[in-house]
Amino acid sequence: MNRRLRVAMIGGGKDAFIGAVHRHAMALDGHYKLVSGALSSSPEKSLASGRELGLASDRNHPDWHTLLADEQRRPANERVDLVVIVTPNHLHYEVAKAFVDAGFNVACDKPLVHRWAQAEELAALVKARGTAFAVTYNYTGYPMVREARELVRSGVIGKVRKAIVEYHQGWLAGAMETSSNKQSSWRTDPAQSGPGGALGDIGTHAENLLHTITGQGIEQLCAELSSFGAGRTLDDDASVLLRLEGGARGVLLASQMAIGHENDLRIRVFGERGSLSWQQEDPNVLVHAPLDEAPRKLTRGSANLSEAARRACRLPPGHPEGFIEAFANLYTELAADLHAGTRSGDYPRVEDGARGVRFVERAVASNGRWIAF
Amino acid sequence: MNRRLRVAMIGGGKDAFIGAVHRHAMALDGHYKLVSGALSSSPEKSLASGRELGLASDRNHPDWHTLLADEQRRPANERVDLVVIVTPNHLHYEVAKAFVDAGFNVACDKPLVHRWAQAEELAALVKARGTAFAVTYNYTGYPMVREARELVRSGVIGKVRKAIVEYHQGWLAGAMETSSNKQSSWRTDPAQSGPGGALGDIGTHAENLLHTITGQGIEQLCAELSSFGAGRTLDDDASVLLRLEGGARGVLLASQMAIGHENDLRIRVFGERGSLSWQQEDPNVLVHAPLDEAPRKLTRGSANLSEAARRACRLPPGHPEGFIEAFANLYTELAADLHAGTRSGDYPRVEDGARGVRFVERAVASNGRWIAF
Amino acid sequence: MNRRLRVAMIGGGKDAFIGAVHRHAMALDGHYKLVSGALSSSPEKSLASGRELGLASDRNHPDWHTLLADEQRRPANERVDLVVIVTPNHLHYEVAKAFVDAGFNVACDKPLVHRWAQAEELAALVKARGTAFAVTYNYTGYPMVREARELVRSGVIGKVRKAIVEYHQGWLAGAMETSSNKQSSWRTDPAQSGPGGALGDIGTHAENLLHTITGQGIEQLCAELSSFGAGRTLDDDASVLLRLEGGARGVLLASQMAIGHENDLRIRVFGERGSLSWQQEDPNVLVHAPLDEAPRKLTRGSANLSEAARRACRLPPGHPEGFIEAFANLYTELAADLHAGTRSGDYPRVEDGARGVRFVERAVASNGRWIAF
Amino acid sequence: MNRRLRVAMIGGGKDAFIGAVHRHAMALDGHYKLVSGALSSSPEKSLASGRELGLASDRNHPDWHTLLADEQRRPANERVDLVVIVTPNHLHYEVAKAFVDAGFNVACDKPLVHRWAQAEELAALVKARGTAFAVTYNYTGYPMVREARELVRSGVIGKVRKAIVEYHQGWLAGAMETSSNKQSSWRTDPAQSGPGGALGDIGTHAENLLHTITGQGIEQLCAELSSFGAGRTLDDDASVLLRLEGGARGVLLASQMAIGHENDLRIRVFGERGSLSWQQEDPNVLVHAPLDEAPRKLTRGSANLSEAARRACRLPPGHPEGFIEAFANLYTELAADLHAGTRSGDYPRVEDGARGVRFVERAVASNGRWIAF
Repeated sequence: MNRRLRVAMIGGGKDAFIGAVHRHAMALDGHYKLVSGALSSSPEKSLASGRELGLASDRNHPDWHTLLADEQRRPANERVDLVVIVTPNHLHYEVAKAFVDAGFNVACDKPLVHRWAQAEELAALVKARGTAFAVTYNYTGYPMVREARELVRSGVIGKVRKAIVEYHQGWLAGAMETSSNKQSSWRTDPAQSGPGGALGDIGTHAENLLHTITGQGIEQLCAELSSFGAGRTLDDDASVLLRLEGGARGVLLASQMAIGHENDLRIRVFGERGSLSWQQEDPNVLVHAPLDEAPRKLTRGSANLSEAARRACRLPPGHPEGFIEAFANLYTELAADLHAGTRSGDYPRVEDGARGVRFVERAVASNGRWIAF
Repeated sequence: MNRRLRVAMIGGGKDAFIGAVHRHAMALDGHYKLVSGALSSSPEKSLASGRELGLASDRNHPDWHTLLADEQRRPANERVDLVVIVTPNHLHYEVAKAFVDAGFNVACDKPLVHRWAQAEELAALVKARGTAFAVTYNYTGYPMVREARELVRSGVIGKVRKAIVEYHQGWLAGAMETSSNKQSSWRTDPAQSGPGGALGDIGTHAENLLHTITGQGIEQLCAELSSFGAGRTLDDDASVLLRLEGGARGVLLASQMAIGHENDLRIRVFGERGSLSWQQEDPNVLVHAPLDEAPRKLTRGSANLSEAARRACRLPPGHPEGFIEAFANLYTELAADLHAGTRSGDYPRVEDGARGVRFVERAVASNGRWIAF
Repeated sequence: MNRRLRVAMIGGGKDAFIGAVHRHAMALDGHYKLVSGALSSSPEKSLASGRELGLASDRNHPDWHTLLADEQRRPANERVDLVVIVTPNHLHYEVAKAFVDAGFNVACDKPLVHRWAQAEELAALVKARGTAFAVTYNYTGYPMVREARELVRSGVIGKVRKAIVEYHQGWLAGAMETSSNKQSSWRTDPAQSGPGGALGDIGTHAENLLHTITGQGIEQLCAELSSFGAGRTLDDDASVLLRLEGGARGVLLASQMAIGHENDLRIRVFGERGSLSWQQEDPNVLVHAPLDEAPRKLTRGSANLSEAARRACRLPPGHPEGFIEAFANLYTELAADLHAGTRSGDYPRVEDGARGVRFVERAVASNGRWIAF
Repeated sequence: MNRRLRVAMIGGGKDAFIGAVHRHAMALDGHYKLVSGALSSSPEKSLASGRELGLASDRNHPDWHTLLADEQRRPANERVDLVVIVTPNHLHYEVAKAFVDAGFNVACDKPLVHRWAQAEELAALVKARGTAFAVTYNYTGYPMVREARELVRSGVIGKVRKAIVEYHQGWLAGAMETSSNKQSSWRTDPAQSGPGGALGDIGTHAENLLHTITGQGIEQLCAELSSFGAGRTLDDDASVLLRLEGGARGVLLASQMAIGHENDLRIRVFGERGSLSWQQEDPNVLVHAPLDEAPRKLTRGSANLSEAARRACRLPPGHPEGFIEAFANLYTELAADLHAGTRSGDYPRVEDGARGVRFVERAVASNGRWIAF
């Protein structure tokens, strides 16, 4: 077994949902250890969070600038192998740019940044520095999403004609952002979360899922955004028509006021010779319906899956793997790249993150009209 | 029990799928008997079909003109109570107009006619003559669709914010209309089926379901139509964004190239205080998710359903009722109107049929832009 | 089309659930007309029910003895083709014997009679008279049950190893028989319903489903019966282990106090090379799992079903057929026998009814021990 | 955060499925670190496995005797806090006894030991030594199993009347143990796996699930065991009738030749006022059906769950947690006990393991008759 990779985390302190998820995901397969952190925008909270997580005091920092300076000072055999950025969205740009510029490998939560111009700049910088840069679109880490991608690639369902991707949540159906709920408040503030509401928060996951499985980019889109919550400035509901490269049509629906749905990301892809259907809340199953034959239920862990899917499984069929496992798959693929110095792992890159930013920006710009992507 | 109502059928002879469905539906509850027919556009086939169905020879007609003349000659106590029109779509207009004009009650399959102008004219005529006129949007005859409608009306889910209605079929995914398949060939010929392909065939059912449950009309729409089948002139796939009266948003998807879907009409309605979800292939269940509570599975036949839903049930819970039963519910409600001379039954009317025609026409006109309904 | 067969009905008057079901089932395909009846054990109620159903006064009888005498007097071209017995269970024996003895064809509800000795006698009489005799185990009329039977017969799943059949209902979970509920009261009275409670009411359906699909009789059984309802004398819950002919093992569960289940009859059959799974509340689907391959969802109406299953379908895939349709399939197969004078139709016979009676009797006798069937 | 607990692992080397699962489960929440091991019965393989897992050479042992001696020599602040036993079943007894006797805390895989006499002895020793002893019945670590237990305890479904627990797998349907498949070979050899085949391997999980949720022990049982695989000496299929303390009835089915089932553990519990239903392959959902009300879908992570269930959740609703997470819940509860020196954590103990051994032994002894537990 390789040594554990050293990790610094920016953001993700106490009470931060996504920071804990990243730590679980890194822990699961034993490839990483957290050694350094600047875990909050508040220095006091940052240090307290670091103590709670057992960081050594000389690597427990009040802010990310201090952390960066400290890491740059350290010898290579102490320096972190990876910087994980799980701050609120509006800080991603500045933090990611600084660490990439200093030659650090980065894993950054989504959406990558707020603006396409920022994303382009960051992608160019990553290219120039040659660092590894993962964007944690975790849902594409599920084994059966990879299986779907491989089935499309290998032509099993024929040329793709249409894809329908939906992401429905209901947790913003009430007036939560007026309460003290930390999750909902920053997600509905444009300054913190970027120009998209539901679009940025969950729509980008849908875009990534669509692109990952079909392999086809968006050429044109027509987006209808709505804000149903009282006093909400950002969209909490989006319906987007798509024209994909290669002629396929698409529909992308994202909503956070869909009562009865918890975290219901799902996709259907229709080809000339078959279709595929997958749902995040039942992630171990992929339904494949061949033309004129009975639909088949493919399951995670089965012997006849593609190599890419099998590599993402820890357990035999019938032993459910979930959200954290899918998240961990990105980190495990990234670990292989970090150990080997390669850039060939199966995880989303800065370009995928940039495309997601573009998607939000263009959907907001569409305002009900068809526009080019 | 009331006497059986006398029925004449136009179209629906041998091998005609929908004619047999209407006959099953009329038979189920014992309210009707078929006594007269002009069952095909071919006189020979018409007569042969009538003999097979046991029509008396003096009421087995080679064409509908003869039938109409014969019925007009007969005394009231022999004359048919209802004329059922199940011809190919392009004949609906002429036949329906003639019988309504002559004062006959009519049940007509959908889509009502090809053109909005025809529909308006027909609706005006029905109003003028005062005849009963049912359009057999059979899916709204399901008890749990009626329950959904009542739950919306009674405010259980609050103000409607969004509705997503989908109708997916896969049977036109291959190149069926080049074969001798009778079903598919006329449905993909504009002269016979009207300006809509999938839109007219199944999209109108989706529109009717949406309107029935939400009670809200379409104000504006933006439709993307596609033809994936080689050499097909009409749409076999439609994605339509909707703005409903009252401010709700809608999405209507209809496709006949969706491999893996058989007859998958489904709807989700999201309100301010809850949501409803129903699927035609599992029609005895309606899921109601109240805000901040666990979703509930409501079932056909249960004691606590609305009166409108209970009236549409024949069997206790757990004893599945299906397509024919839902279809029969329209005929049973119509029978009550015919016996009583009322027009208050729970079935779609000529205005509903006209609105469906309008929907197809406007969706075709939209051509990717938002236009008024 | 053949002439409509003339039917007399014994029992099944106003408010009788199962009588109405038989009438719907007979009406659906147009093979029968009800012309004669003795619809209740109360003469007044009997006549009132007959008037409501439109029986001619000379064939609307106060009791079944009068009906029998009347039918025997009539010429062959007036006499009923079929006598349908839908009385409470305790009257089946006497009524069925009288009509069979007089040479009438009979369709009798289940359980056939109370006692095995009665069943044997009746079966011998049917054989002697050569009449047609259907027992309305309606659940085996579902197309996908027939498909399952054909798949087992044709060896697709290999030698059967085990079958698990369950029939769960919850409607007797409360103390319903103390109320005025007509359904529950007679079903829990041994004098009226026979020695089995849940066993006789629903367990016999489970036995029939098991036998129909596997084709294997029970050699030995070990039954655990319970009465959970306060003051209930008959079983409301049964768990039965089975040893089948040919070496397979079986489990049969029947309960009427299983809250949350409505009419949940389901079966799984495991063979050496595959398994089958079917549920009555989702009757249009049969899951076939071949050894080492992905499970397939077979659907009613599909092109590649067996002839026996296809013959039982009225509608294409995705258009749900339900309880009444399955029930009607028995009547339609019986109609073909009645018209042709054959005895080859696909419906349960007096022997199947007798076996069901045997099953109840032996399960009660088992008292927790293994005994021969 | 507390320091990471030091762990020694016995068994679970390369290619051992369950060893890797334990390591994932221990890693997930960051409470443990593996510092010592004797990972195989082969000294060479043991040492090689330890090197691969990064054990220091002085704590990487060729066999468990050496490991025990080494640990006993070490000062308390180096000594392991926990010994994890994941050897083949037949070694559990000897290894567990030695470590408990030496005062070590133990987590042992199931089934605990082969014989009830061994189990009793081991339980007495644990009591005498006062060590912590967890048996990894991992399925009861699922949050919704804990929720089910709490709902029963709090009387929500009333007095339990019947429970049906099933555990179906299909992987032994073919003749796998003749192949080189390591998993199947030892599991079907009585000397290695104990007197139960499917019973010991999966039936004990079913027993534990039943006992955990209902809180009721088995008073009497009647078991039918079968071996369908050619040349198999142990059961691969078991059907067991149960009489529970308090008068409830039970059915326990366990099979490993059930083609089409992967790891299908499920339970239904019927009470006087409601029922509960849970399935391991969809573990984030618990269906609660109250008497005379619509069934509700309760989901992991929801705000209104019991404290015991919420404590077992890492993620919000809709973010699936799976097998490893449930497994980790046992380890996390155990960690709290180990840190605090308490014995109050929510995980199965040696007594639960002993009861499972008793269950297998009595089921084998039953041989088709009712016997006391």
